Amino acid sequence: MAINKERGIKEMTITASPAWAAINAHRQTFADTHLKELFASDPKRVESLSLSFDGILYDFSKQRLTSETLGLLTALAKAAHVSDWTERMFAGEQINRSEGRSVLHVALRRSAGPFPNSRFDVMPDVVATRQRMARFAVRLRDGECLGHQGMPIRDVVNIGIGGSDLGPKMMGQALRSISHPALGVHYVSNLDGAQIAPLLQTLDPRTTLFIIVSKTFTTQETMFNANTARDWLRANLGDELISENHFAAVSSRPERAVDFGVCADLVFPIWDWVGGRYSLWSAVGLALMIAIGPHAFDEMLRGAERMDEHFRSTPFERNLPVVMALIGIWNANFLGAATNAVLPYNESLKYLPSFLQQLEMESNGKSVSVAGETLDFATSPIVWGELGNNGQHAFFQLLHQGGCLVPCDFIAAVRSDFPLPAHQEALLSNCFAQSAALAFGRNKDEVRASMEKELIGPTVIADLLPHRVFAGNQPSSTLLLTSLNPGALGSLIALYEHKAFVQGIIWGINSFDQWGVELGKAVASRILPALYDAQLAKTLDASTQGLLSFSREHLL
Amino acid sequence: MAINKERGIKEMTITASPAWAAINAHRQTFADTHLKELFASDPKRVESLSLSFDGILYDFSKQRLTSETLGLLTALAKAAHVSDWTERMFAGEQINRSEGRSVLHVALRRSAGPFPNSRFDVMPDVVATRQRMARFAVRLRDGECLGHQGMPIRDVVNIGIGGSDLGPKMMGQALRSISHPALGVHYVSNLDGAQIAPLLQTLDPRTTLFIIVSKTFTTQETMFNANTARDWLRANLGDELISENHFAAVSSRPERAVDFGVCADLVFPIWDWVGGRYSLWSAVGLALMIAIGPHAFDEMLRGAERMDEHFRSTPFERNLPVVMALIGIWNANFLGAATNAVLPYNESLKYLPSFLQQLEMESNGKSVSVAGETLDFATSPIVWGELGNNGQHAFFQLLHQGGCLVPCDFIAAVRSDFPLPAHQEALLSNCFAQSAALAFGRNKDEVRASMEKELIGPTVIADLLPHRVFAGNQPSSTLLLTSLNPGALGSLIALYEHKAFVQGIIWGINSFDQWGVELGKAVASRILPALYDAQLAKTLDASTQGLLSFSREHLL
Repeated sequence: MAINKERGIKEMTITASPAWAAINAHRQTFADTHLKELFASDPKRVESLSLSFDGILYDFSKQRLTSETLGLLTALAKAAHVSDWTERMFAGEQINRSEGRSVLHVALRRSAGPFPNSRFDVMPDVVATRQRMARFAVRLRDGECLGHQGMPIRDVVNIGIGGSDLGPKMMGQALRSISHPALGVHYVSNLDGAQIAPLLQTLDPRTTLFIIVSKTFTTQETMFNANTARDWLRANLGDELISENHFAAVSSRPERAVDFGVCADLVFPIWDWVGGRYSLWSAVGLALMIAIGPHAFDEMLRGAERMDEHFRSTPFERNLPVVMALIGIWNANFLGAATNAVLPYNESLKYLPSFLQQLEMESNGKSVSVAGETLDFATSPIVWGELGNNGQHAFFQLLHQGGCLVPCDFIAAVRSDFPLPAHQEALLSNCFAQSAALAFGRNKDEVRASMEKELIGPTVIADLLPHRVFAGNQPSSTLLLTSLNPGALGSLIALYEHKAFVQGIIWGINSFDQWGVELGKAVASRILPALYDAQLAKTLDASTQGLLSFSREHLL
Repeated sequence: MAINKERGIKEMTITASPAWAAINAHRQTFADTHLKELFASDPKRVESLSLSFDGILYDFSKQRLTSETLGLLTALAKAAHVSDWTERMFAGEQINRSEGRSVLHVALRRSAGPFPNSRFDVMPDVVATRQRMARFAVRLRDGECLGHQGMPIRDVVNIGIGGSDLGPKMMGQALRSISHPALGVHYVSNLDGAQIAPLLQTLDPRTTLFIIVSKTFTTQETMFNANTARDWLRANLGDELISENHFAAVSSRPERAVDFGVCADLVFPIWDWVGGRYSLWSAVGLALMIAIGPHAFDEMLRGAERMDEHFRSTPFERNLPVVMALIGIWNANFLGAATNAVLPYNESLKYLPSFLQQLEMESNGKSVSVAGETLDFATSPIVWGELGNNGQHAFFQLLHQGGCLVPCDFIAAVRSDFPLPAHQEALLSNCFAQSAALAFGRNKDEVRASMEKELIGPTVIADLLPHRVFAGNQPSSTLLLTSLNPGALGSLIALYEHKAFVQGIIWGINSFDQWGVELGKAVASRILPALYDAQLAKTLDASTQGLLSFSREHLL
């Protein structure tokens, strides 16, 4: 048990709480009760195990739990003081303790200040930045941002990685049906030249603007790509290049961006109280705002703000982020699920699995508590997934018959963003069918009856029967949006953000640091010089030596 | 124990074998021995735990095992009669028992026949099809395939899903540096109109050819997209449309393709002895061949054939697919890993994780033996992953500090396919650094020493220390190719194919059927008509009813 000295509160590892023990006891009585039985025994099940919010239906009736489970889980959230911690976040307390920072991404979508309070009010900066972004985005969209020799900018390349890439890229894809039709917006993240080099071949240097997004303005991948972009401009535009016409930047170190050659007017700030994976709503979303326009961007912020208010003010039983977090904890800690699949049934949501992978795994993929104690229970599952319809023809085999527990999030929009006759109806029926098939399965009697109906002989039936049985009882939730509009998408992403927050609180984790990224960087800086220096390589481990030696042989 | 009546061989569940018991006993003595210790105790470790094959270095020294482990594992492969089953596959026996089919994708890359034997020789068909594909691909690449009013075809759209999409798409991306510069090759799979509709907006109907790829020519997604493509051509080209100029097809039901409107000369066959996920090498690879040309396609086949020969003829200890399979079994069944991450350090390999996800999870995501008995041990892990460098800034936090075992496959090419100054060297150093950091970690003393060196005070050190420790001991293999050339990539994919095969044999699974896909289809066909019929919906489960009712409200 650790004492939080600052607040004098005794913090208990959550697994030692009576609430945890109560859930464990419940789980044992509950055992492997099949979803089929759960549905049969409670005709009101769907009403009590689904919620709706502002055009989003959240149906978690196909999770392996009951209202009683949910009651016990909300007691766990209370035992972990989730409301108290939520208020601390909204109050601007430095809940990111290991880095001594507030956590205020919610400020980025507030419509009015002061916030978090009048002594520490971030809203003037937030609002001023929003307005600067909007002015720039409008000018660019209207063809008033000029590149080389007065030609208007037609292509925008966002150079950033991790949180400086995934958020705007994911949302830009989700909203491509309302994107500016004549502007190209591209994303470059990978250090591999095979991403930026072929892209540059398709662009006109005279009309291309790069947005360099890096909090520190030292991120290795981003600076490599930014330098390559500048070299490309120089090589193509020569002495006539006015570098300042081709760059904007988002950074908390504006002086470094200016040194690089970005016009000071086009350096947009980001603050230490925003984590990269929570920064879509900030100037990190500039490329997105350019694509969809400030009005749609604002609608997205309003959707997120509505979710913030819902999260802050709604009783746990009816609170979407809290319920979603608790279901995740039930699956991971009580049913033993190691992973969580994210399955969007919209082509436009194709980057959502990667985005949520970062959000959840970087926030909660930790095994040390805020107080520094090693945790002996599961925290973030592995979040993975693909477009659901494509997955049906690829890995769904394992979900249906692999015999391991994989909770799934099905995500779809009722109305298509690119409607074609009949496609959408068939798509939705596939989405609903998969979650039903996963939940209810098909037992031996059903298989036998259906094979007998097809007049298949008894020997063949006996041979094939076991292969055609579906155990079912694979849990899932379905999130159904009316359409892929900016407001609903803003709510959806804020929902997952707060889900991760609630889970972090219950697990006792700091969801806002990411110390796990630093060792690899340090090791890479030792390996790089050894690539061409066999003597230096000898100070490294034997495997790295072997890899370097093979590389040296084939690079040169 | 099941009796295989056909062959009179007693088949034993592998977990009951002495070989399995021996590995279990070894695992207990081995326990959690840290990779750091394993490297320290054996200076020859890398030599004994890495293999090379035809320009590919396979370093598995950072797996949590020793040569002794490997010896015990190869004994397991022997106990499971892996060589015998391999020969049965190559001999064309119907080892896909539940479907009564041979498994002969290896025929697709053979340079000469007869194969599998002179009585049952598939090579004449294979070679003839290869030649027809090549003639068509050359004509198309040379601008001799004419669309509307004699205009040459400039864009090719592959319409297929699952195995009819992932293979050629993955390989097409991997080899884009050698793709035809003036031809666009596109892939459409998703039933969601939001994939094909925006693509069609960018294409000229007069110069676009669609390749419809479906074994049965009834796959729902593929037929929807094919119909939409034909409607689009009709709408744009009107009465002058000659439908046959704009379609080719790959199917085992050529008459259906001709009925659809494909010219019989442009219907390419596929056979029941090729599974979709193993079909890249067949006419399913037509779009790929068009992109890279028949010569490069052939080099890819030759690379795969070399791996086939290696697999067939090399002792288990030095046999790449066998060793890779055994490592997977060690991780899944003895160390308890639920997943396997695939981390390519090449932008051009961005679809590889999805491809391998299908290959492994659809092949071995099963919990029933060939003989129909329920298996009580883990089979295919969940295969997931992203471009490695991007992952470093997203989910690697969990790999480094999440506390759960996630074996990783790092995959890179030494030479870049799009070289830019310095990028490649930095990229490789990141790849090698991550696997080293995962393996060796950083303990408390090392963190403390490094913080003291930075003159950080003792209180801060005490607070931060636990957050900056890396437990290490996270296992990985590295596959290093000299470059992304067709031959090496052919070898690489054949390697993973045979890996899945060997694992299936050891687990006692039929890796070549996929009964798990059928229930969802059946349920979808019941749900679709209920979308607009509230009465009909009442026959469905309560959750589906709720989802349909929400959809009905917002669709109309």
